[in-house]
Amino acid sequence: MTTPEEKHRTDSANLLLFIALLMLTIFTIWIFKHKRMRFIHETGLAIVYGLIIGVIIKYSTVSGNAPQMGNVTCKQNTSVVPSYVYVNYNNSNYLFTRHKIYKYHIPVLLLFSVFSVMTFDPELFFNILLPPIIFHAGYSLKKRHFFRNIGSILTFAFIGTVLSALVVGSIMFGFVSWMMVYNTDPTFTFGFVDCLLFGAIVSATDPVTVLAVFKELKVDVNLDALLFGESVLNDAVAIVLVSSIQKYQSARSSVFDSGAFFSALGSFIGVFLGSFAIGALAAVITACMFKFTKICHYPVLETSIFFLMSWSSFLLAEAVGFTGIVSVLFCGVLQAHYTYNNLSTESKARTKELFELLNFLAENFIFGYMGVAMFTFSHHHFNAIFIFGAFVAVLVSRACNIYPLSFLLNLGRKRKISRNIQHMMMFAGLRGAIAFTLAIRNTCTTGKQMMFSTTLLIVFFTVWVLGGGTTQMLTWLNIKVGVDEDDVAAVEALDLDHQNTETQDSGPQPKYADSAWMFKNWYKFDKNYLKPILTHAGPPLSASLPSCCAPVANCLTSPRA
Amino acid sequence: MTTPEEKHRTDSANLLLFIALLMLTIFTIWIFKHKRMRFIHETGLAIVYGLIIGVIIKYSTVSGNAPQMGNVTCKQNTSVVPSYVYVNYNNSNYLFTRHKIYKYHIPVLLLFSVFSVMTFDPELFFNILLPPIIFHAGYSLKKRHFFRNIGSILTFAFIGTVLSALVVGSIMFGFVSWMMVYNTDPTFTFGFVDCLLFGAIVSATDPVTVLAVFKELKVDVNLDALLFGESVLNDAVAIVLVSSIQKYQSARSSVFDSGAFFSALGSFIGVFLGSFAIGALAAVITACMFKFTKICHYPVLETSIFFLMSWSSFLLAEAVGFTGIVSVLFCGVLQAHYTYNNLSTESKARTKELFELLNFLAENFIFGYMGVAMFTFSHHHFNAIFIFGAFVAVLVSRACNIYPLSFLLNLGRKRKISRNIQHMMMFAGLRGAIAFTLAIRNTCTTGKQMMFSTTLLIVFFTVWVLGGGTTQMLTWLNIKVGVDEDDVAAVEALDLDHQNTETQDSGPQPKYADSAWMFKNWYKFDKNYLKPILTHAGPPLSASLPSCCAPVANCLTSPRA
Repeated sequence: MTTPEEKHRTDSANLLLFIALLMLTIFTIWIFKHKRMRFIHETGLAIVYGLIIGVIIKYSTVSGNAPQMGNVTCKQNTSVVPSYVYVNYNNSNYLFTRHKIYKYHIPVLLLFSVFSVMTFDPELFFNILLPPIIFHAGYSLKKRHFFRNIGSILTFAFIGTVLSALVVGSIMFGFVSWMMVYNTDPTFTFGFVDCLLFGAIVSATDPVTVLAVFKELKVDVNLDALLFGESVLNDAVAIVLVSSIQKYQSARSSVFDSGAFFSALGSFIGVFLGSFAIGALAAVITACMFKFTKICHYPVLETSIFFLMSWSSFLLAEAVGFTGIVSVLFCGVLQAHYTYNNLSTESKARTKELFELLNFLAENFIFGYMGVAMFTFSHHHFNAIFIFGAFVAVLVSRACNIYPLSFLLNLGRKRKISRNIQHMMMFAGLRGAIAFTLAIRNTCTTGKQMMFSTTLLIVFFTVWVLGGGTTQMLTWLNIKVGVDEDDVAAVEALDLDHQNTETQDSGPQPKYADSAWMFKNWYKFDKNYLKPILTHAGPPLSASLPSCCAPVANCLTSPRA
Repeated sequence: MTTPEEKHRTDSANLLLFIALLMLTIFTIWIFKHKRMRFIHETGLAIVYGLIIGVIIKYSTVSGNAPQMGNVTCKQNTSVVPSYVYVNYNNSNYLFTRHKIYKYHIPVLLLFSVFSVMTFDPELFFNILLPPIIFHAGYSLKKRHFFRNIGSILTFAFIGTVLSALVVGSIMFGFVSWMMVYNTDPTFTFGFVDCLLFGAIVSATDPVTVLAVFKELKVDVNLDALLFGESVLNDAVAIVLVSSIQKYQSARSSVFDSGAFFSALGSFIGVFLGSFAIGALAAVITACMFKFTKICHYPVLETSIFFLMSWSSFLLAEAVGFTGIVSVLFCGVLQAHYTYNNLSTESKARTKELFELLNFLAENFIFGYMGVAMFTFSHHHFNAIFIFGAFVAVLVSRACNIYPLSFLLNLGRKRKISRNIQHMMMFAGLRGAIAFTLAIRNTCTTGKQMMFSTTLLIVFFTVWVLGGGTTQMLTWLNIKVGVDEDDVAAVEALDLDHQNTETQDSGPQPKYADSAWMFKNWYKFDKNYLKPILTHAGPPLSASLPSCCAPVANCLTSPRA
């Protein structure tokens, strides 16, 4: 039997174990849903199972059906003492699985080869598992409430995340200085930029657990929109922030001056806008393609193109050096807003279901893997001071993000963000898949390994404790549940119409929500120009465009309009 | 910029190009469907686009925006002359893509690094792209006509494929001996086992092209069932055959004696049965899981479990050393037969659509890649004698498979396989994705590379010429088209009922089809025992099982029955 074949079998077994883990999780999720248990969310559950499997792997190294004691003589031509020796063990008693490889460490310890490779390329998380999660977030965004609160969401996501990263970075710098007092390893360095990097990593909030509870309990729509919008955009911000800091780190020394800051800021804005442009481009091309052709008669082709175009936006952004996640997020939002209307009924269902499934599998895989990584990752560095500091920093930074920004936003908002909603937002600052993925991408130095170990602990704590306590917290804070979204929508649509009439009478008067002015202008532009160009909906372009553009208008107007 | 980041961007660009290729193919497929053009099938089209991209890649090496002439001094510490030199080229004029790597070959030739890595791991084809194709084939099998013709299908698939491999091997051995006369390379060897291996590789027929035309034209259901059944099972047989031969090859010398033959036969049967057992086990577990739980209330969970269980059957078989493809095929057939009935309405649609989509994407990707590989694979070995021999061998072996076996089968069949149907089956012996994947898996010796190059040519020829001529051939052979399957089904169901009554009157009388006896017994067993155990359908078990098994029967009987 050749080595690649053996490797292939090991890989298969490896993946199989993870799939078994995933299935176990799904099955338990079902039991929990069935019994209406809410004290732990599916993601928390995935971690628990992952931990169990991790423990089994770690401590099964000397148990199992080990071969009998004996001497094995190996031919070894090199002068270096190898750290591992693989011994092929043939047992003809078993009909099929008679060929096994045992791995000997220098302190004689048996380990099945299956378990020694239980690690995946971190790029896998970033390139394969994250895109569907993020795309799904964009694709399933409730646009009405999102755009109604766009100003607040952008503030929390952009200013809040940067603020959070800075606060965590500063606090950690203090704790790291303290930690350095006890440091005995002269090669270990941890500068301010490393602290900032850690700040950016743990600033990616991921309230998937909280939102699942919200959805089930039908919580207040504005709270839902604020949290969902913040978490989605904030992932993108954190990712761009991390990559900007890493670029800066690899380009120069660890000195941080104002020039470097503005260069990082410039790169941050450039990358963000570039990624957005690519995502938007992919969505616009898809929308036009489906509007002007009759490909909707073949739903498989339609769904394929939709899937591939959305994935392309990710790949294109990565290929030119932007951030694919940001690109795929906006692509998702715009696909939902424009392309979705051009799809056939069948494809509408298909695309939704497909991305729902991919999102579900990817998410549970990542959380399950986190649990496994806790025990199988071999370079953990747990430092009590660093961990304590990180927990303090995470809490303080969340507070510095939510309360001051809410105060400022409330100055401009008509519908204020109440105290209780603020407490709930503070509470819902869970860390999840994105923080984990950002941390696992780079674990080559001791400092980075320490960040990774600590991030894992933060994720576990927030998902179990904060995520598990969501229902209690909602009750405790007296936040309205059981809100029927359609009712709210109907009331608000009426409200908006009424307000529109009012506005037309008495000039622009940003009355309704915090971002009413911005929202209304965008809404008008979108309704009169973008929707008619990109979809079959809206008034014909010949009505909205000036008469000189009539030929263009006729050409672009949908045959169905 | 670091090397892994550069690699990541290159990988993204690489994948992006393939996705663009795929989208181009899909879009053209749509145009062809729209205009009802049938002279070339989508798979043939994918190859054509692949070839075009391959040509562009190959001949764009000296064109493009090459940097100006100049001297670059590189520091090189080793004494060996490197075959490639990479030069980082920074151009600050471009805002974003200012960082490029040029690859210098020894004879100065520019090649963008993007294009130099345009190869995928062959394992990708085998482990990621084939399973959904094969599963979908099993899952979408028309069981009625398949089981009606099971005897003939098994004969064609098992005996026919082995026969075909032997015939191709023998003919090739003759041609190879001739080729060896002109051989100047003393290290080049090509024994009889290599010839057999080539025979096994090109014996995997893949009439996806033909079947697509059949489906559109609603061709005679028995011809359809025979060809589809043969091609699905024959893939499995060819794959097991190839892996048996390769195992044999790596285990011993190239001498082929009767002992080796029986050992290979034993391994073949063992692997086949083992793989079947794993696939069946996965399907049975899934069916029971869905029957006895109410997981169907959550379609996402249900679809996830279904998908993961089916994939597990593949991975488990590969992990224990069986053949995943065979396992996933039977898993698909049984999932369709049992589990499908236990699914919720939504999951029924979801699973079908999901596998349809995966199958579609995977298939077009493989065919597109074939075209690209024609030009980008750098170790092609085209030998006129070998290629000529291969074409002769493929035709002769197909004839040796179809005509003698049809003659033998017609002795026992009531509904004979007519001359014209035989000619059509002979004509429909296309080679496709499986042959390609088997050939690309091993290209480490000159002989294997020659097999790969020749297999590519055979695939192109059969897909374009035979696949393109299907409609003309059907007309020419006067084969009935426009058959409504439901009508046939209704007539045949009546027929079968009538026959059943007859049989009960006058004892077992295998009258209806060639495999009526086998089919009927299986049908009875399935209806009375398996279906009631595994699904909600059929008579309650308490009626069919003997009274001593009453507790078991009550326990297994569906709550819905």
